[in-house]
Amino acid sequence: MDRIPEAVDTPDVLIDREVLGRNIDRMAAAVRARGLALRPHAKTHKIPQIAALQLAAGAVGLTVATIGEAEVFAAHGAQDLFLAYPLWVGPRQAERLRRLSAAARLSAGVDSAEAAAAMGAQLGDAAGDVAVLVEIDSGHHRSGVHPDAAADVARAAVRAGLRVEGVFTFPGHSYAPGMPAEAAAQEQQALERAAERLRDAGIEVLRRSGGSTPSALLTDSSAATEVRPGVYVFGDAQQLELGRCAWEDVALTVASTVVSRHEGGHGVPRRIVLDAGSKVLGTDRPAWATGHGRLLDHPDARITALSEHHATVVWPEDSPLPALGERLRVVPNHVCITMNLVDDVAVVRDGVLLERWTVAARGRNS
Amino acid sequence: MDRIPEAVDTPDVLIDREVLGRNIDRMAAAVRARGLALRPHAKTHKIPQIAALQLAAGAVGLTVATIGEAEVFAAHGAQDLFLAYPLWVGPRQAERLRRLSAAARLSAGVDSAEAAAAMGAQLGDAAGDVAVLVEIDSGHHRSGVHPDAAADVARAAVRAGLRVEGVFTFPGHSYAPGMPAEAAAQEQQALERAAERLRDAGIEVLRRSGGSTPSALLTDSSAATEVRPGVYVFGDAQQLELGRCAWEDVALTVASTVVSRHEGGHGVPRRIVLDAGSKVLGTDRPAWATGHGRLLDHPDARITALSEHHATVVWPEDSPLPALGERLRVVPNHVCITMNLVDDVAVVRDGVLLERWTVAARGRNS
Repeated sequence: MDRIPEAVDTPDVLIDREVLGRNIDRMAAAVRARGLALRPHAKTHKIPQIAALQLAAGAVGLTVATIGEAEVFAAHGAQDLFLAYPLWVGPRQAERLRRLSAAARLSAGVDSAEAAAAMGAQLGDAAGDVAVLVEIDSGHHRSGVHPDAAADVARAAVRAGLRVEGVFTFPGHSYAPGMPAEAAAQEQQALERAAERLRDAGIEVLRRSGGSTPSALLTDSSAATEVRPGVYVFGDAQQLELGRCAWEDVALTVASTVVSRHEGGHGVPRRIVLDAGSKVLGTDRPAWATGHGRLLDHPDARITALSEHHATVVWPEDSPLPALGERLRVVPNHVCITMNLVDDVAVVRDGVLLERWTVAARGRNS
Repeated sequence: MDRIPEAVDTPDVLIDREVLGRNIDRMAAAVRARGLALRPHAKTHKIPQIAALQLAAGAVGLTVATIGEAEVFAAHGAQDLFLAYPLWVGPRQAERLRRLSAAARLSAGVDSAEAAAAMGAQLGDAAGDVAVLVEIDSGHHRSGVHPDAAADVARAAVRAGLRVEGVFTFPGHSYAPGMPAEAAAQEQQALERAAERLRDAGIEVLRRSGGSTPSALLTDSSAATEVRPGVYVFGDAQQLELGRCAWEDVALTVASTVVSRHEGGHGVPRRIVLDAGSKVLGTDRPAWATGHGRLLDHPDARITALSEHHATVVWPEDSPLPALGERLRVVPNHVCITMNLVDDVAVVRDGVLLERWTVAARGRNS
């Protein structure tokens, strides 16, 4: 049961190399079988070695959220990068995009005529070197325009000298119980409708991009040309509880130590405290989650509270409390947050430490 | 109104140098006036320059949460460090503690006889160089023993060759509306009772340590000898909404840009989207909070959702939506989380960038 290498001090992030490889290959095969291109979101892992595995398995390129992430992956040889974000471009951003577009095939999001105009004006002569996709709102109500307004944004982009390649959306509302199918259906309708509006305006649609991890395998190739799942490489407690990944598909855990132990009673909970808190697990906790993450080897335990360096774990009544100093593996609720909290990770196979990988794009928020 | 220096790209963390200095001096004076020692928690800022300001204002030493944080502040000259955490010490931790205790006066927490025995055994000859304080539970029900059990832990520490200096507690349940006074009262009772038990066991009590930011100024010098507030240096949206800091005391904001803008209607909210998401603001959100942070210059706006790189802000009906590209300052819910997400911060005065400070202890989780 001790799957945590002795050389690891807690808290630390463990990546199971075998499960990681299996997850990458399975998604690649499944997306290919649906006739879609896979452009995985690299914000989940932020690690060039994992991006290389995804590309080797057939991904057509990478998705990133920020110019800083794009710079890191371009520096490590990525040749096709999609900035799936409604960029607001000033002079410094334009200079960075110009440099990036010399190194890689670059596309970026835009969701307003104003942002398209700003991007075109700032890029100047280089405007044609950055392809744009219009972001549409498929029901998540975050960024993105109504599908019927996509053509207005696309026309503004064309006027600004940008090259319009298509439309994209993020069905973020798929991250809730029972929602993946509905969100995927709304995503398809929105992509189809927006693409139709662009064609009506005489703009060719080469890419229709969608697909979160929960919805990626529900997306239809008649509506989309590519999907951008991210979390599938690791899985996490949210995906577990949504039923979108199995326990044996969890590739990332946080190694932790029991530092405090209380049998409880008299109104005080029977619990242990682990040294993995919000500064390594993150505090993402949707209302439907059963706690602040799960314990890989103790599915009945519940993380009822997180402080910065403490996880309070209420233990099942019928099971003895682990000993002080025992080391346990925690599955975070949301892996993208955990990866952004650590500088490097321990890569393990069968409990043996193989190597450490640097989280090269950690903290690249702008 | 533009208090964001032109040279700053968003998202970025701004520290108002003047407000920071005022907050540090005010807490130092208030704690001194109550006859208590101030040992501020450096996990909040993780910045040696800010620790130096706290020590210059009269702090007797620093509190830290991890051995890694202690190492960073010791390397920057801190001479008195309290690891307010129930440490579980193995061979590598012991070696680090030995090195630390050669550089600084070192004390650490312990909340079980087993942990005390392990610490003493691992430290060996150096056991007497690390002072220990027994952690007690004053109502937060995280780590810490019942006050009546403090003497058992202290006796085990003495047997293990450790030098017992006293007791400490963290009244974390003070972070809720209406709770600071009650939590402070429970904290006092618990500290007094535990100290009494130690004295009954013939152990001298030199330190009784308590005090979160909400409760620090409610702590009584008859019960405690020192307090360990952290958040007071910056303030944050939690402290604002708890009424423990005023808007003009907010020293830390996240500079952000309006990247998406939607008038809404037909069931879709009227909103803007900022480029500051959970990867810079953090997702701490107590149930009583009004949102995922506040806007410093727009107190009526509400951050209704956070994604990793998006804050969705629902705007007051009677107020025009900000323009695309406009830059706004966000007050995070919990500054300790924000500081752990960035490598450096912009120090500003009157909207002018003075310098950048490195968050030297960021990510030092172990």
